[in-house]
Amino acid sequence: MHTFLNDTFLPASDAALSVNDLAIQRGYGVFDFFKTVGGAPIFPDDHLDRFFHSAARMHLPVGKSREELKEIIAQLMQLNNFPDSGIRITLTGGYSTDSISLGRPNLVITQHPMAPPGKDCPPPIRLISYPHQRQLPDVKTIDYLMAIHLQPTIRERGAFDVLYHNNGVITECPRCNFFLLTADDILVTPARKMLKGITRKKVLELAAARLAAEERDVLLGEIPAAKEAFITSTSRHIIPVSHIDDIPIGDGTPGPVTEQLNAMLHQLVISGK
Amino acid sequence: MHTFLNDTFLPASDAALSVNDLAIQRGYGVFDFFKTVGGAPIFPDDHLDRFFHSAARMHLPVGKSREELKEIIAQLMQLNNFPDSGIRITLTGGYSTDSISLGRPNLVITQHPMAPPGKDCPPPIRLISYPHQRQLPDVKTIDYLMAIHLQPTIRERGAFDVLYHNNGVITECPRCNFFLLTADDILVTPARKMLKGITRKKVLELAAARLAAEERDVLLGEIPAAKEAFITSTSRHIIPVSHIDDIPIGDGTPGPVTEQLNAMLHQLVISGK
Repeated sequence: MHTFLNDTFLPASDAALSVNDLAIQRGYGVFDFFKTVGGAPIFPDDHLDRFFHSAARMHLPVGKSREELKEIIAQLMQLNNFPDSGIRITLTGGYSTDSISLGRPNLVITQHPMAPPGKDCPPPIRLISYPHQRQLPDVKTIDYLMAIHLQPTIRERGAFDVLYHNNGVITECPRCNFFLLTADDILVTPARKMLKGITRKKVLELAAARLAAEERDVLLGEIPAAKEAFITSTSRHIIPVSHIDDIPIGDGTPGPVTEQLNAMLHQLVISGK
Repeated sequence: MHTFLNDTFLPASDAALSVNDLAIQRGYGVFDFFKTVGGAPIFPDDHLDRFFHSAARMHLPVGKSREELKEIIAQLMQLNNFPDSGIRITLTGGYSTDSISLGRPNLVITQHPMAPPGKDCPPPIRLISYPHQRQLPDVKTIDYLMAIHLQPTIRERGAFDVLYHNNGVITECPRCNFFLLTADDILVTPARKMLKGITRKKVLELAAARLAAEERDVLLGEIPAAKEAFITSTSRHIIPVSHIDDIPIGDGTPGPVTEQLNAMLHQLVISGK
């Protein structure tokens, strides 16, 4: 398995950063993650748009153009020959001389084999709510401190993940966006203080043809009346939610809107490759 | 220059972590930092207490006892022969198989030459206030995302650093604690939602013999009436503050309480070695 580091392809096991890097010293970096299916990157321009946005917001020069990044990714895919995979592009704060000033950013591109999401929804999962507002939420930074810190709590409570909220206003899961189908059949998803996922964007586009969809504040208080709920991510597409904090949603099986959107998304990804 | 990594002393330039480490992938790690003066670590037990607390709070087994760490630090000091130095102990989330579950933590101990703080206060500095609450504030994590993100703003405004507050309640600077002398000569410092520095602790102990000192909520609104203000850190001891958001404090020179506490702290560090 190969990894790209700054200007070189090298065996993944050799890809390392000096302990002076600001990611290690100060948790400072950004990344993006997309999948390949059958040898084709899925929604690469959406992901690269967001990657360049994240880098600019964190004052990190990428040092490569979009076309250069695409060419490097194509070469990495050729070297690794993983048709179905996840590709992660990371840009760190670089080697700092004083542990606070940015250095020249380190660019790391890794690829690992990953089965694409299936045609059908995975089994419904449980979420637990947690009051937390991510810092710089519009930027895909490497900051998952709270998410990892909460893993034992999530396991103890038999949940799949945590659902962050800010004074009762739902924002996101650490690695997924959240959707809820209201009693009057409106699909709603949080609009602010969260990261706008690429799968979230595609789901909103697909939903527009089928039902009313709104980006707006979604409250914890809306959960008991919800007909359906699901979370979205690049690696899993749509995962139905059966319970939030022991409040059941629907009858515990994936609802019809959830299933239909997942099928449409699957079709889009297969056709888009 | 040597660095200790897990079980080995190696040249600092060879000390590197695989890009799979959770510090690089997820900004997940803790650290502590203390100085040595004339070949002696300063307040090592206070720092090791906090380091073990931080590691436990983040579910990271240190893998070494306190005595083993002290022995490693002693060997590192012998190898490097920097009598006046800064020593940083970092513990990361380790190499994760799924980029979310903890691996075996990586332990990194670095040393670099550092002049000890002088006998006199450094020149007063300017702070700018900024609304931000650090996550897990009682833990010395590697999360300085906001601090580094704000560096250009700090420079633009001619300030030395940012002073975080939470709805007008002052918490801390990213790497320093904050003290204010009220109009009625009470030394006050924030009590909660911030990291309790070792220098802060020593200053409170020293102050107790001289004047009334309180750990309590300190409000931005108290700044205009303040007689003196300063920030504290391991590497700089006490730095007087002349302005916060263009509000002048005192006459722009270090106040008598600031100067006396700094002299007492200097004496304690020199005698403590």
